[in-house]
Amino acid sequence: MIEIDFKKGDGLIPVIIQDASTHEVLMLGYMNGESWEETLETKKASFWSRSRQKIWVKGETSGHFQEVKEIYLDCDGDTLLLKVNQIGGAACHTGFRSCFHQQYEKGEGKVSGEKIFDPKEVYGK
Amino acid sequence: MIEIDFKKGDGLIPVIIQDASTHEVLMLGYMNGESWEETLETKKASFWSRSRQKIWVKGETSGHFQEVKEIYLDCDGDTLLLKVNQIGGAACHTGFRSCFHQQYEKGEGKVSGEKIFDPKEVYGK
Repeated sequence: MIEIDFKKGDGLIPVIIQDASTHEVLMLGYMNGESWEETLETKKASFWSRSRQKIWVKGETSGHFQEVKEIYLDCDGDTLLLKVNQIGGAACHTGFRSCFHQQYEKGEGKVSGEKIFDPKEVYGK
Repeated sequence: MIEIDFKKGDGLIPVIIQDASTHEVLMLGYMNGESWEETLETKKASFWSRSRQKIWVKGETSGHFQEVKEIYLDCDGDTLLLKVNQIGGAACHTGFRSCFHQQYEKGEGKVSGEKIFDPKEVYGK
């Protein structure tokens, strides 16, 4: 039995989401024990929202679910890496494929990713 | 000027390290303001060790430095993604290429990565 260390992060574990086909890193979220169990059960990535303080199924509003293909645990047992099939092709709430769409160069941010959808149309705001 | 949010994580920001050529996710570390500045200055990944409570230049003992090629900031400004050239080919202190070398399957961990070096030879322990 493999053990996940939720204690180090006060009940939360950081989870890296990587596109299983393109290998692009899409986002980083946090899971508590409950969202981890839910992810295993449903095979859809589910997180703990630190700002809203509640469980959050990625894609519940947008329909852009993340189908979990493979799960990896790091050497310390305190970080997860999930390889997913990103439904709709975009993980970021801003409409970009990846949340990491700002490249940092000499103190400035340069948009470098691909915009897949218009957030106004998807979230109505 | 782009702003990094160190406040949300009590002065620390999670940093995903990805191999710039293979796109493999190698590890996740944490930076505080000082290790971030040091990383920018030296172009070598430098972290804050939560267990040892000190700045830690990745590779200072093993020689397996991480040369920073590209830096990305996520949409919330609270997570970094660094694409690196991994000197020596391995990021994990256990000798594996990636820290994420345990695949999680039905509660069990299955070794799935490639072992590049013998930690006893590199760290002498």
